[in-house]
Amino acid sequence: MESGSINFSTRSGGKVKVPPELLSFLKKEHRFFIATHISPEGDALGSSLALSMVLESLGKETVLYEKDVIPEFYGFLPGHEKFTHVIPSIVNHEWPLILLDCSSIERAGIDRERKFKLVAVIDHHEPAPHCGARPGTARDFGDIRWIVPEAAATGLLIFELIKKLGVTITKDMAINLYTAISIDTGTFRYNNTMSDVLRAGAELIEAGANPASIATNLYETWSRERFALFTMALATLEIRGDVAFTHVTREMYQKTGASPEDTEYFSNYPRMIKDIKVSAFLRELDHDYWKVSLRSKGNINVAKIASTFNGGGHENAAGYEIRASLETAKDLLLKALATASANR
Amino acid sequence: MESGSINFSTRSGGKVKVPPELLSFLKKEHRFFIATHISPEGDALGSSLALSMVLESLGKETVLYEKDVIPEFYGFLPGHEKFTHVIPSIVNHEWPLILLDCSSIERAGIDRERKFKLVAVIDHHEPAPHCGARPGTARDFGDIRWIVPEAAATGLLIFELIKKLGVTITKDMAINLYTAISIDTGTFRYNNTMSDVLRAGAELIEAGANPASIATNLYETWSRERFALFTMALATLEIRGDVAFTHVTREMYQKTGASPEDTEYFSNYPRMIKDIKVSAFLRELDHDYWKVSLRSKGNINVAKIASTFNGGGHENAAGYEIRASLETAKDLLLKALATASANR
Repeated sequence: MESGSINFSTRSGGKVKVPPELLSFLKKEHRFFIATHISPEGDALGSSLALSMVLESLGKETVLYEKDVIPEFYGFLPGHEKFTHVIPSIVNHEWPLILLDCSSIERAGIDRERKFKLVAVIDHHEPAPHCGARPGTARDFGDIRWIVPEAAATGLLIFELIKKLGVTITKDMAINLYTAISIDTGTFRYNNTMSDVLRAGAELIEAGANPASIATNLYETWSRERFALFTMALATLEIRGDVAFTHVTREMYQKTGASPEDTEYFSNYPRMIKDIKVSAFLRELDHDYWKVSLRSKGNINVAKIASTFNGGGHENAAGYEIRASLETAKDLLLKALATASANR
Repeated sequence: MESGSINFSTRSGGKVKVPPELLSFLKKEHRFFIATHISPEGDALGSSLALSMVLESLGKETVLYEKDVIPEFYGFLPGHEKFTHVIPSIVNHEWPLILLDCSSIERAGIDRERKFKLVAVIDHHEPAPHCGARPGTARDFGDIRWIVPEAAATGLLIFELIKKLGVTITKDMAINLYTAISIDTGTFRYNNTMSDVLRAGAELIEAGANPASIATNLYETWSRERFALFTMALATLEIRGDVAFTHVTREMYQKTGASPEDTEYFSNYPRMIKDIKVSAFLRELDHDYWKVSLRSKGNINVAKIASTFNGGGHENAAGYEIRASLETAKDLLLKALATASANR
């Protein structure tokens, strides 16, 4: 495998190297507790599953932990049923932990007092205190830290790792990794889509991933209730300047039979409008209490905006919660965007 | 270039070879009339522009012809302004013709009596009489025919051709070819997304194509009027069995200020619903006169359905026109689908 292996370019044009201490740790230990972040998505799930599979193929024992319920549409991921939502009693302080797609233990929903033999962190998110960690925690956590913010997905780090371990990528690993990469690049549409992301995708297709089937599973499995809620949400569109607002109220769930989880991705759609720079989707949590999801185009950093409301996220996708009326929430966001724009 | 060049796999696993007679024709002639099909989309436009660029880089003269108006959002394609919509008088019977992304001269909107020195056809559509040609015509037309139905896009054939000609792909060629491939694979989501399609994409990124910018240009440049029409169209959703119907009336254009061209892609969205196998979008052309666009998932061949109404298209994307009331048009389609299903 080594001779044909590729190293994917980071956005800065450099090459990603798997830390030697991570490789020897994985080779040396016999069992691993693998955990990923709460509210899991394709990169968290796919990376964890693929890593578990490669370690088991090397004769190791793994326990996969995800605190939250896994969204139903990820049921196509091979091995998804292996996730436990409660830490089994067998996992004690003699087990090492591998934390995936996040870099603080709180983000994985694990008690911070819990002890592990050793902790390895593999992530592509910029470590930041806003992840729910105590200030500074995320930046320090872990004995072995492989954090590559330039990587488009944690799945790409696992892809690289598998090759360095000299393991042939199986069809099941390929499906998980292709899904991980798909989710975090918008299936090759976001600005983290570098050429070597496509090359990794090509290798995963050759290893058995089916792009059309994965896309259908990710994007074409909406329930009728969800689609009805979507139609209703789009009808709430209000454009103010270059910001598009849409929202969903609790009443709409009742009318359509859909649920809050069904609103995932809703915030993406108003970005389709040509002159819109920010799409803000507000989901009613309670009376005068909203969850705000922001999506931006180009160089508008919505993570910074979200952090002014004690939220967080990525440059082009972030969120926060706010206790205010719908109108006030909209006004406050516009004010924050104007302030950020004036400071640029 | 040759040593690093790849040959993309066809769906049948074979390799695509550029016909030697096409290569010598391109090398020998000094000028080319390049024409593509009416109602042009990204593959037609991008392939034609890239081919014109490579031929001009070899010192040849080219005239690019597209009978119809080019949709405004393709204005980002380098060189798009070079298309002429009227055949210039300079182009006489001593010019050779290269027909791209179609295989009948009628499909390019050229008078079938017009004479050319020689005709080369480069296409990835299965030649069929339903393209507007007289029966049999499309199957025979052209002195040099390079028709590869297994190729995901004509842009991939041009990609291969450029490499065989030993020309370095420029940024402008790369943007055109990446767009061509994007449009015909749903940006790597349709079932024609083979590994070598991604490898070609990777090479085009390295040559200067920007995937995020191209995706934004293709998918995120809707006018507010178009988005309003979209919202209205989704609200017409009617599900009967596993068929989702949506429609747009002429009255809706007046209400939103949108136009018929704005309905492109509308038919794709109801496919997002899990148990929907066919999405049928009906656009009112006149009183009791509808244009029907069909999109299917999996192995439902809507081209066959469309042909029973004298329409045509691809396996998963086809269309036809029908003179009937909205309700009758829906009923007739359901009947045709039931018949096809019974015959499978």
